[in-house]
Amino acid sequence: MKGRSLLMIPGPIEFEPEVLRALGAPTTSHVAPNFIETFGNSLELMRTVWMAPTGQPFIISGSGTLAMDLAGANLIEPGDKALVVSTGYFGERYANLLSRYGAQVTIVSAEMGHVVGIDEIETVLKADQYKLLTFTHVDTSTGVRMDPQAIGALGKKYGVLTVLDGVCSVAGEEIRQEEWGLDVVLTASQKAIGVPPGLALLVASQAAMKAFHSRSTPVSNYYGDWSNWLPIMEAYEARKPSYFATPPVNHVAALEVSLEMIAAEGMEARFARHKEFADTFRSAVKGWDMSIVPREESNSANTLTAVYYPEDLDGNDFRMKVVKAGVIIAGGLLKGKPGYFRVGHMGAVNRNDIHATITAIDHALKQCRS
Amino acid sequence: MKGRSLLMIPGPIEFEPEVLRALGAPTTSHVAPNFIETFGNSLELMRTVWMAPTGQPFIISGSGTLAMDLAGANLIEPGDKALVVSTGYFGERYANLLSRYGAQVTIVSAEMGHVVGIDEIETVLKADQYKLLTFTHVDTSTGVRMDPQAIGALGKKYGVLTVLDGVCSVAGEEIRQEEWGLDVVLTASQKAIGVPPGLALLVASQAAMKAFHSRSTPVSNYYGDWSNWLPIMEAYEARKPSYFATPPVNHVAALEVSLEMIAAEGMEARFARHKEFADTFRSAVKGWDMSIVPREESNSANTLTAVYYPEDLDGNDFRMKVVKAGVIIAGGLLKGKPGYFRVGHMGAVNRNDIHATITAIDHALKQCRS
Repeated sequence: MKGRSLLMIPGPIEFEPEVLRALGAPTTSHVAPNFIETFGNSLELMRTVWMAPTGQPFIISGSGTLAMDLAGANLIEPGDKALVVSTGYFGERYANLLSRYGAQVTIVSAEMGHVVGIDEIETVLKADQYKLLTFTHVDTSTGVRMDPQAIGALGKKYGVLTVLDGVCSVAGEEIRQEEWGLDVVLTASQKAIGVPPGLALLVASQAAMKAFHSRSTPVSNYYGDWSNWLPIMEAYEARKPSYFATPPVNHVAALEVSLEMIAAEGMEARFARHKEFADTFRSAVKGWDMSIVPREESNSANTLTAVYYPEDLDGNDFRMKVVKAGVIIAGGLLKGKPGYFRVGHMGAVNRNDIHATITAIDHALKQCRS
Repeated sequence: MKGRSLLMIPGPIEFEPEVLRALGAPTTSHVAPNFIETFGNSLELMRTVWMAPTGQPFIISGSGTLAMDLAGANLIEPGDKALVVSTGYFGERYANLLSRYGAQVTIVSAEMGHVVGIDEIETVLKADQYKLLTFTHVDTSTGVRMDPQAIGALGKKYGVLTVLDGVCSVAGEEIRQEEWGLDVVLTASQKAIGVPPGLALLVASQAAMKAFHSRSTPVSNYYGDWSNWLPIMEAYEARKPSYFATPPVNHVAALEVSLEMIAAEGMEARFARHKEFADTFRSAVKGWDMSIVPREESNSANTLTAVYYPEDLDGNDFRMKVVKAGVIIAGGLLKGKPGYFRVGHMGAVNRNDIHATITAIDHALKQCRS
């Protein structure tokens, strides 16, 4: 008996043993030739995974919230107009964050479970000139997924920089950053990227970097300032030592292993696998006569599924029974009735994990109702 | 043959196998009961290691530069006067950082290898009222060590918050935060704390937290804002789940292991061991007829030693020969003639590592001169 529960929450997730081994390997110097190669190779692999051949990748020690902060702090100057497309908890957070940097923020938001219509976004973009638009690709709080291709196109049409918060989507959901005209695609390591939490990751387009270089005010966040980090990313990619802050050596080594595995799987195959697992899980949900939080299945993420508890169920009791059956799932992040639970199915998760999760939920349901 | 060089730079350092195993262990949920216990226990252990029984500890994903940024961003408001006591590279950095938050910065600095005199600091404090004073306890660029007890006393005497940059000192050099009246003692995980890079750590005094709560302007750094983090630290310490950003689960698990080992060694024994290793290494330096960068041995750190190359030596060639003998040492961080090298001797380093380093340098010297 391996004696460990399956971690099927929307991040952190199950990680590949090879990734964990790299994380726990003896640490090398941050300027040792083998580490410089690891860092440089990871930056290059990000361009492959992000599908952004001319983008500028950043790898920085911190959480996914830092990745959101990097885009906000570096691209917003006081007085800039920003449009936040909000589909839940993380849209609200982005509005707060951008306000902190002096942005005049307009929010268009959807009711829980709904997406914000592309038409609605276009109406707002027609009415005023915005510098920046942010949207949550997959909202971790609800499993609702927006359409990045349509939003990227709107950004190009109206001359607005688009920021895709991909904390719960990059390397799981289909994203073609450069083809779709997205200016910043950001994420954290612990979701579909497949590395324990501790890295803020993003790729910025040339247009985003140009906007950054055109700032007339300094970035009011020292640690997050791209002026400090850009020379470091450029140096490592040129396979030269450089220093601003000590990089998280073990984490970068683990990132390289995971990115290599992602690239070896291939992005198209990876997108298809995530869709297949999501379909499998949602079929089971239908069989239990439960309903998912996203109102339309086409707007439900492939990386996680949020499911309303049936009325006769005590949510906490149910989740505890799932844990006893060997699988950790997450509660809802938004309050309100009815409550809901969330299952993450991304990254290194395999078909057996999905099946084990379905069976554990099935057992727990029967126990609750017996 | 274990096939790995000894990492004797001033961070990252050699880590305990138990710490690396915890870092590479399968990841648990950030709200799982066992992780909540790990996080809460780590916060409590920080108070022991920092000798700050009533301080407020923070554990945040990021580098040591983020730890410096946290103190600056949260304690400085535009127009505040700050005094930076600079003994090298990291003092200059702190001046830049505080200016970013609108501080009027005064720098008192010493020439390379010298400390700033306590009298000199007092003269400046007498002449004007400062809100904040920062100093680098051990400057990683030179190995120069300032006296924190004397500076803490000055802070109390003149009503100035004192920030000890302990990136290269906490858990190696003697620091009694509360007894010595130091308001913020900050560090990174990868030095004497003994955990691979990726955690910004600090303990703030009640006076520092009061100053933070008395701010009249918001913190202009979203990720670093203590308003976001304080409720999280309080919740984990009360053994309750909470969420702002996903904590670096594996790193916190590794931190708990290392802090437990530090506490088990005992702070007095740990200070004494670091002093003994530093003395051993410096005795060898004298035997080679080389001189250390700090002008007085009493101002030379116990965590690292910076040593000038003799005139007849090509520094790069010499360092390569040391690496070939199995030990990685670091070059100087400051430019200028003569050049110098740095040896870290902190944290999990043991007597054998020190002896192996001395022997490797000895061999390299003989080779260079043969």
